[in-house]
Amino acid sequence: MAKARVPKRPYHHGKLREALLEEAERILNKRGVDGLALREIARRVGVSHAAAYHHFEDRDGLVCALAARGFERLASDLAAGARRADGPAGFDEMGVAYVAFAARRPGMFRLMFGPEAAAGRADPEIRANVDAAFSILLEGARTIVATPGDDRAVRCVALRAWSLVHGLASLLLDDQLSHHGLALRDHERIAREVLAARRLLL
Amino acid sequence: MAKARVPKRPYHHGKLREALLEEAERILNKRGVDGLALREIARRVGVSHAAAYHHFEDRDGLVCALAARGFERLASDLAAGARRADGPAGFDEMGVAYVAFAARRPGMFRLMFGPEAAAGRADPEIRANVDAAFSILLEGARTIVATPGDDRAVRCVALRAWSLVHGLASLLLDDQLSHHGLALRDHERIAREVLAARRLLL
Repeated sequence: MAKARVPKRPYHHGKLREALLEEAERILNKRGVDGLALREIARRVGVSHAAAYHHFEDRDGLVCALAARGFERLASDLAAGARRADGPAGFDEMGVAYVAFAARRPGMFRLMFGPEAAAGRADPEIRANVDAAFSILLEGARTIVATPGDDRAVRCVALRAWSLVHGLASLLLDDQLSHHGLALRDHERIAREVLAARRLLL
Repeated sequence: MAKARVPKRPYHHGKLREALLEEAERILNKRGVDGLALREIARRVGVSHAAAYHHFEDRDGLVCALAARGFERLASDLAAGARRADGPAGFDEMGVAYVAFAARRPGMFRLMFGPEAAAGRADPEIRANVDAAFSILLEGARTIVATPGDDRAVRCVALRAWSLVHGLASLLLDDQLSHHGLALRDHERIAREVLAARRLLL
C-alpha cells in the first residue's frame, strides 16, 4: 500500500482540490476508472476523507471533475498540435496530438469517453470544455475542406477526422494492433503515417 | 427473471453448442459482457449447467467462442458490403457494414475488441477469423490505393480505413454524438456521409 504523503501545512482550499484531482488522475491512468476511490485519494494526499468530500460530493462528482479536466487538457493539446504546422499539416498534427493524449493518459481517455462521464455530460463544466475542444477541431477542419464557408461540410469533415484518430487511439489502447507489429509506444510515428496515408489514395 | 425454454427433445451435440452461443449473444447485446453467466445461459436454453460446461470449459472459453463467432460474422458482413458496389464505392460500403455490425451487435462488438477477448487472441479459432476479416479489409484497401502493388501502402490505407470506421462506431455506441444531433439508429446514413466526406477535402 502506498504511504500517505503528509503535507507540512494545511492546503489552501483551491490547492487541495487540485492536489486531489492530480492524485486521482495518477490512479486513473494506472488502474482505470474502477480503481478510483475518494477515501484512498484523500489518504494519499494526506487529508481526511471529510476534507476530500468537501470538494467532491461523491464519486460521481470526482468523475465529472476529472472528465472536465481531461477535456480542458485535450483542447489545449489539440491547439498546441495545430500550432506545430500551417494548414492541412497543422490539422494532421492535431490528430497526432489526439492519439498522443490517449496514449499518455489512457485511463483519462477511457473515462472521458466512457459511460460514467457520458452520464455527466449535462454538467456545465464538462459541456463547456467539450465544446471548446470541438471548436478547435472545427477550426482545423475548416483548413482542409474545399469549401470552408460550408458549415455542413466542415462538420462532416471534422467528424470524419475525429472518428479516424479516435479509432486509431482506441485500437492502440485496446491492444488490437500489436500482432501487426504496431506498439502503443510508437503512437506518434503510427499516427503520422496513418494520417499521411490520405496521399496514398486513388 | 426470464423463463427457461424447455426443449421438446434433447439437443444434438453441435446444435446445443450453437443454441448456447445464440442465447449468450442475446444476453451480451442486451446487458454487455459482464452480464454473461454460463449457468443462466444453460437455464435459458433448458439444459443443465453440466451440459453447458461440456461445451465451454469456463466463462473464458465462452468469451473466446463468442469472439470467434463475432469475427466470423464481421468478415461475412464486410464481404457482403463489398459486393454491394464496385471499386472505391464497394470499399465505402464495407465501412458502412462495419458500423452497422457494431450498431446491431453492440455487446458483441465491445466483447470482440475488449480486454477479455484480446487476452484470448492466441486462440487459433479467433486468430483465423480475425485474419480472415483483415484479409477482406486488405483486399478492399487495394481497390482504393494508387499503387495496389505496394503492400506497405495497402496496409497503411487499410489501417486508416479501419481506424475511421472503428472510431465512428465507438463514438456512436458510446453516445458521444447525440448532442450533435447524430443518433445511433441513423448509423447507416451517418457512416455513408462520413465516408463520402473524403470528396469534400481540399
